[in-house]
Amino acid sequence: MKTVVKGIDLSNAVNKVVKAVSTRSPNQLLEGIKLSCKGDTLTLTATDTEIAIEKVIRAETFMEGETVVPGKLFAEFTKKLETEEDVELNITSDGRLKIVYSDSESYLQALSADEYPIIKKDINRNSFVIKQKTFKDLIASTSFACSQDDSRPILKGCLIEIKGDVLTCVALDGFRLAVCKKAIKESTGDIKAIVPSRALSEITRLIEKDEDFVTVMIQDNSLMIEVDNTVLTTRLLEGEYIDYKKIVPQTYLTTFRVNRAMLLNSIERASILAKVMKNIIKLDIHENYVDVSSDSEMGNVKENVIINLEGKDLTIAFNSRYLIDCLRVISDEFINFNLNSSIAPCVIKPNSDDEYLYLILPVRLNQ
Amino acid sequence: MKTVVKGIDLSNAVNKVVKAVSTRSPNQLLEGIKLSCKGDTLTLTATDTEIAIEKVIRAETFMEGETVVPGKLFAEFTKKLETEEDVELNITSDGRLKIVYSDSESYLQALSADEYPIIKKDINRNSFVIKQKTFKDLIASTSFACSQDDSRPILKGCLIEIKGDVLTCVALDGFRLAVCKKAIKESTGDIKAIVPSRALSEITRLIEKDEDFVTVMIQDNSLMIEVDNTVLTTRLLEGEYIDYKKIVPQTYLTTFRVNRAMLLNSIERASILAKVMKNIIKLDIHENYVDVSSDSEMGNVKENVIINLEGKDLTIAFNSRYLIDCLRVISDEFINFNLNSSIAPCVIKPNSDDEYLYLILPVRLNQ
Repeated sequence: MKTVVKGIDLSNAVNKVVKAVSTRSPNQLLEGIKLSCKGDTLTLTATDTEIAIEKVIRAETFMEGETVVPGKLFAEFTKKLETEEDVELNITSDGRLKIVYSDSESYLQALSADEYPIIKKDINRNSFVIKQKTFKDLIASTSFACSQDDSRPILKGCLIEIKGDVLTCVALDGFRLAVCKKAIKESTGDIKAIVPSRALSEITRLIEKDEDFVTVMIQDNSLMIEVDNTVLTTRLLEGEYIDYKKIVPQTYLTTFRVNRAMLLNSIERASILAKVMKNIIKLDIHENYVDVSSDSEMGNVKENVIINLEGKDLTIAFNSRYLIDCLRVISDEFINFNLNSSIAPCVIKPNSDDEYLYLILPVRLNQ
Repeated sequence: MKTVVKGIDLSNAVNKVVKAVSTRSPNQLLEGIKLSCKGDTLTLTATDTEIAIEKVIRAETFMEGETVVPGKLFAEFTKKLETEEDVELNITSDGRLKIVYSDSESYLQALSADEYPIIKKDINRNSFVIKQKTFKDLIASTSFACSQDDSRPILKGCLIEIKGDVLTCVALDGFRLAVCKKAIKESTGDIKAIVPSRALSEITRLIEKDEDFVTVMIQDNSLMIEVDNTVLTTRLLEGEYIDYKKIVPQTYLTTFRVNRAMLLNSIERASILAKVMKNIIKLDIHENYVDVSSDSEMGNVKENVIINLEGKDLTIAFNSRYLIDCLRVISDEFINFNLNSSIAPCVIKPNSDDEYLYLILPVRLNQ
């Protein structure tokens, strides 16, 4: 392999794909970035076998070929070659990668690409098209509620469900549930897939042009998007997702409307003192106000936030972190709380639309 | 104590003084911030017995008094009260601090201020006046070279020496030495003091108005500055500072001039591969160029940087971090290297002035 690329192109491409490099794998190849030179392009590939990212850049090729270089190291190194200047990449006779720039040359240990995993890219049976900003908002308002632990792997992903021209994204971790619905532009039909939340957050990084559309392709157990010569593919999670609709109550005994920012500020202050008490904060819901309080050996907070109540008074406690997560992603001025009892789930919705629903389980207070 | 202050004033003041709060002290008072209310002012004080920071803000006082509240917690809490709104601070009959804002109230555990250390502020025997930006530059270009470990406590500070209208600041850690000289506006006479580098970096945070002057006062074993109603005092380090002038060679066999940014870039690239090799990089100095190289099992870098040489060729090795530290603080386009042999100290100076000197010991290469 011998090819010449622009330093800035190389650095940008490496920076994009390096996110898919495996951090600690028994297979050294997965800690590397594959460089593959063909025609007038250089293709950079990284994968940890769950996610794969591939980027193609223009290159002036003198000899085709491929190799695998240590990913993080190559990323650090190319970061320092971020100029319009040419960089020559060259495989030496002893299998190292020779990097030539200005009057200088460097050598990196490299591995043969022969055993590097093949990234499957013929993924096109099903697809949908969505505005990039819409997709980003959808992911941001749900994926934080995915489970972080491995006890139920399926909960580490978001359920993506298309019916007609509506995409529903669902995340839950056993303590809270987030559901967001958004309109799509078009689709090949109804789709159901469980996408690892890590893949979704990488997708968020790739779709930078808010007003453009992105096509999401799905086939068998894979999902793929292509943006600006960057292709991301991810394995889908297999299994049956929890029937989340069953969890959401249909009727409520207590509902109130509250200014989101005011409540968020109060909960944030209360949670400072609640830290030593497992983040537990209490809401005492009265006719015209809610008392947000927390109690610990360091002190206690008791705040008074005005609300519009329908139904009966109620005292309920939550893990403040779960409340704060939700109040930060909603952008509406007012939100609605819907409750039944101090041990039943609480449902939070923006006041203005039905696109978003957040359900949170209360914490039982010791009486 | 009962007093009313503006939320934003309180938050800003707490944020300034909290830097002097002790992080882990057997004396719980030192983890606190003292609030002291007298006349139409509230004074906030924090100290870890080395550094003390005190700030005075306007207050509407109903009852004078004082108390000590948990520092970090109070800082986090007041951060969430950053508005123009009034905040009432009140000591309850059971000794807690009651904080009242909007329709809400919170209580923090508090301690009696009776045993809180008294901050000595009659420090004025010697003093000098210097432009804030000049003082900041002086600190930034030297204090990074202070020792970090406790084996020789005196090296954890900078030597500050005034002779006539020149202030010399010196830092060294046994591997490198940084000396910077700057003009001052005036002084009460010659001064010599060793100031903890931690205090200097806090001073840097306080002097925000580049074009204004700051008065630095010294007496016995203390130093004090006052900026915008904030007073910082620090203990000075006691003992005899190393006679650093003896370390600096008077003559050189090899000197070269080089473009600072070009050399810095090369060294940074080389140091990426040198990480696994204790950061060792090698300079091969030739008549018209220097080869910057590093070698490790991951690969090797060899860069070619143009220089103007006077004297004989030389091969010398350094810890790249010590070189990078220096090349980053100098702002000149060109710098001069002055050397004698591969085992003798190397002296780096900006090309344009004699204000700054950096000395670095080489690393012995295994032959």
